[in-house]
Amino acid sequence: MKIKGRNAVREALNSDINILKIMANKSSKDKVLSDIISLAKKKNIKIQFLDSRVLDKECDNNQGIIAETSDYKYSTVEDILKVAKDKQKNNFILILDGIEDPHNFGSIIRVAECMGVDGIIISKNRACPVNDTVAKVSAGAIEHMKIAKVTNINSEIEKLKKANVWVYACELGGEDLDMADLSGNIAIVIGSEGKGVSLVTKKNCDGIVSMKMYGKVNSLNASVATGIVLYEVVRKKRK
Amino acid sequence: MKIKGRNAVREALNSDINILKIMANKSSKDKVLSDIISLAKKKNIKIQFLDSRVLDKECDNNQGIIAETSDYKYSTVEDILKVAKDKQKNNFILILDGIEDPHNFGSIIRVAECMGVDGIIISKNRACPVNDTVAKVSAGAIEHMKIAKVTNINSEIEKLKKANVWVYACELGGEDLDMADLSGNIAIVIGSEGKGVSLVTKKNCDGIVSMKMYGKVNSLNASVATGIVLYEVVRKKRK
Repeated sequence: MKIKGRNAVREALNSDINILKIMANKSSKDKVLSDIISLAKKKNIKIQFLDSRVLDKECDNNQGIIAETSDYKYSTVEDILKVAKDKQKNNFILILDGIEDPHNFGSIIRVAECMGVDGIIISKNRACPVNDTVAKVSAGAIEHMKIAKVTNINSEIEKLKKANVWVYACELGGEDLDMADLSGNIAIVIGSEGKGVSLVTKKNCDGIVSMKMYGKVNSLNASVATGIVLYEVVRKKRK
Repeated sequence: MKIKGRNAVREALNSDINILKIMANKSSKDKVLSDIISLAKKKNIKIQFLDSRVLDKECDNNQGIIAETSDYKYSTVEDILKVAKDKQKNNFILILDGIEDPHNFGSIIRVAECMGVDGIIISKNRACPVNDTVAKVSAGAIEHMKIAKVTNINSEIEKLKKANVWVYACELGGEDLDMADLSGNIAIVIGSEGKGVSLVTKKNCDGIVSMKMYGKVNSLNASVATGIVLYEVVRKKRK
């Protein structure tokens, strides 16, 4: 679906609507337009600057800006919790604390789907939403994965703990992943590319798990780290 | 270092010199130049098309083309085998059978370094060489990793087998990774993004290992798959 015009696009950006990309008139130097574009940038939404004629072909009367939205429907945390209940199995949830890169997010969805994760919880702020790059990189996995976009990761973690889910952050300086007991209802928190899991969130978790590393750099890409931890959780569950 | 001029750049492209990127005159329509550019494209080398004045600032008398080379020195397979000998430990080698994406290659170097791999063997053909994108994505790991670029992956596998290294391909339809005995001297083969490990190479290996997956898509990004397998090899070795 396409949303056109300044007010409509700004409202869409401030709502929960899933925006795939913004198309803007490349020759406009209008202040209102550039404010909307800044807002879109902050939300990590892809922006295409197009010739006004190309833009008019997409939608007429566009006032120099069009938002392309997807049919992707976010789930709720309750939907994700329900997966395990319906299947009469343990919860297996992934929480992303501020993943900003769409390639990392797409790749994480892909491995989460392979490892049988029930759903992924992401933050509304400072995090990449589901957009067309994410969908493409996920290689189709997005269609089979519930994703909940929440206002506050920490209050959701509290809710999960009340629902008897054990929440573990994946970070340096924690218990050796190999030794950790990850049985039962589990949620794994993966931190952002630059900063890792935030301090508040780490404190909020039931524990921290770390993977042993043997190099000199010893820093992993977020999707690779996610893959290793999820595989380990599943491997242990099978035992 | 910069190499300028058509013949010099063509020769560099046909040699083992590690080319980071090619800078070419954007307004030239010369046939010789476009042949050199095609050759660079085939080798997955980044090409920047620049204004002739910008190009002249990089190097004068450039004939419309400049190659930027790195100080990165490829190792030999013998260098990689020597690592384990020097440290009096088992060999732990990674073989990439045609990884074409520089982001995947960089991310693979990063996780290989974290997991203490001795070195990586890549193919000269149909594979991404070490370039500036690879170096950047590796987040510094490239500085601590031996990489050998070989003409024929399969004859190198033969050599490794003669040196008492067990070579395993990571592919669908093999032995469960969790059950596989990966002790002793080990080399892991990871296939290309699209095609996986080639048939000839698979036949050439001592075994095939697969990771159990639980989703509907069940296809992993090459660097994520590499991360999981390398972590598993190390985890088992620690036992």
